[in-house]
Amino acid sequence: MPKKNYTIGIDVGGTKILAAILDQDQNIVGRAKKKTRVEEGVEAVLVRIVDTVNEALAASKVALDQVRTVGICVPGPAEPDTGVIIEAPNLGWRNLNIIEFLVKTIGRPAYLSNDVTAGTWAEFSMGAGRGARNLLGVFIGTGIGGGIIIDGQLYEGSGRQAGEIGHICLNPHGPVCGCGRHGCLEAYASRTAMTRDIKAALDRGIKSSITKEIDEDDRQIRSRQLRQAFLDGDKVVTDVVKQAAYFLGIGLGSLANVLNPDCIVLGGGVVEAFGDAYVKQVNSSFKRFAFQSVYDKIKLVQAGLGDDAGVVGAALIARRKHAAAGKDQA
Amino acid sequence: MPKKNYTIGIDVGGTKILAAILDQDQNIVGRAKKKTRVEEGVEAVLVRIVDTVNEALAASKVALDQVRTVGICVPGPAEPDTGVIIEAPNLGWRNLNIIEFLVKTIGRPAYLSNDVTAGTWAEFSMGAGRGARNLLGVFIGTGIGGGIIIDGQLYEGSGRQAGEIGHICLNPHGPVCGCGRHGCLEAYASRTAMTRDIKAALDRGIKSSITKEIDEDDRQIRSRQLRQAFLDGDKVVTDVVKQAAYFLGIGLGSLANVLNPDCIVLGGGVVEAFGDAYVKQVNSSFKRFAFQSVYDKIKLVQAGLGDDAGVVGAALIARRKHAAAGKDQA
Repeated sequence: MPKKNYTIGIDVGGTKILAAILDQDQNIVGRAKKKTRVEEGVEAVLVRIVDTVNEALAASKVALDQVRTVGICVPGPAEPDTGVIIEAPNLGWRNLNIIEFLVKTIGRPAYLSNDVTAGTWAEFSMGAGRGARNLLGVFIGTGIGGGIIIDGQLYEGSGRQAGEIGHICLNPHGPVCGCGRHGCLEAYASRTAMTRDIKAALDRGIKSSITKEIDEDDRQIRSRQLRQAFLDGDKVVTDVVKQAAYFLGIGLGSLANVLNPDCIVLGGGVVEAFGDAYVKQVNSSFKRFAFQSVYDKIKLVQAGLGDDAGVVGAALIARRKHAAAGKDQA
Repeated sequence: MPKKNYTIGIDVGGTKILAAILDQDQNIVGRAKKKTRVEEGVEAVLVRIVDTVNEALAASKVALDQVRTVGICVPGPAEPDTGVIIEAPNLGWRNLNIIEFLVKTIGRPAYLSNDVTAGTWAEFSMGAGRGARNLLGVFIGTGIGGGIIIDGQLYEGSGRQAGEIGHICLNPHGPVCGCGRHGCLEAYASRTAMTRDIKAALDRGIKSSITKEIDEDDRQIRSRQLRQAFLDGDKVVTDVVKQAAYFLGIGLGSLANVLNPDCIVLGGGVVEAFGDAYVKQVNSSFKRFAFQSVYDKIKLVQAGLGDDAGVVGAALIARRKHAAAGKDQA
């Protein structure tokens, strides 16, 4: 019987499914990627998850019986203990027991986590936050989510909902947020907020290179397109990005004053799109809104694992949970 | 040789010094109180601290050689390890090694903590937050401070500055805060903020019972005076308190979304002055700004230990640190 030294990590997002195989030293030895195609329905997506896993196994030349455990992460509140995804709006999933499905189809113990939690754990364990003790992971994309590490451990909160940093209020009379409230950080600094502000500028007749780049399907502007306009110095886009960075800095200042971490990792599509220039703008605002003595001891860094953060984090969390459950002799 | 079963707790505030003697079951067996009289200088205050301790010992009929350890808490950032109070503006203290002084004069091992940290630990250990796992202590007075309990342990942050919840930003264009920034929670919801807003209303010629009650020395309005006007239904005061409660609720909503605690304890002079009616107003705003599922699982309660929270917390922390340091055989 071969040694079961491998772990499968799966990251299911609104646009793509990623799977990766990790060896016992946490190296990725194979990966695969497919479009999610949410519009085809839950069953079709589930089948495609299994296909992606099989492709990753093939790419890594690892056989299923060499796999010890499976970790999956999804966007939205998850119940890690029961394996139930309570609600993942980007996937159109509600009360889906993904773990039951994975155990049945893949035949290995499986563990569920939230994508931001997984990403934070990955960055803390082997990414840009390595060596930190108290860390805040901040992921900026369509929304803004956060993960919290306290004394080297994942902090999930009493109801496992900790880290909803996109919903700290920066102004009760601010713009409407997706959650229905006003002035949430997410309503100022997410890609959704940037898209809204760029469209508003275009509607006011301000010229921009972005005009033709708005996705006709979902009326969002892709990070890739924003990136190009930002690099080109497009005024509408650079102004909007600057303002979003300013508000993100305010939020980070507030969070740092409360949590006094030694590291903040910035990740997600927006950070990857705008890179260093954006992180510098965030930092400049962050510095103004955090106490000097708090700011001085914080390392604010860009995430290091990119797209891999989710799959790696999901796999690492699965491995830890499996070991903690004492099932490693199985 | 008598058993050293007693602990001294000391709470030095801007207006009063409290000392209490705790027995091994954490009962207060004696207490004393003196005015701080900051204006008389550091030396005079230090002498008065020792006098207060001696009075508390006399009141409790406990001899000094029955005392195991001493805990002291102060307002402002403290370095528990070195015993140095970095800065306590209300006391006019800077870089004062209070522990060195206490060990020399009282002759017992002494431990330093921040007053809000001590109050939070006391409320968690034997006050309104008993039984909680993740708790946020919120103390509203001249300023607003917070203490954080994570998984039953005090969370102090990487630089021991965690919990500065008075300085989360609720609007970057909001009123100036004592810290120099704009729109901090403290600039909306502290007694200082209420005083400012009441004075502004009076300056606009709005009639109020509070007119003659402003302290001529420090231009503050005492909590006691605010309380009476609030109970009397004075419109200026009730409006200002309502607005302060609204903003506190916003701040608590943000904090709850990030920390997902199971308990929030509200304490401090403002809470004691306005009681249930105020807590209800805070709760109503809090409910709007926290996620429903987060809100549903949180117990928002008024602190239970009143003025004793500081002395009790300082004593309990001293006892724990002394035990942890393995000095209990001494």
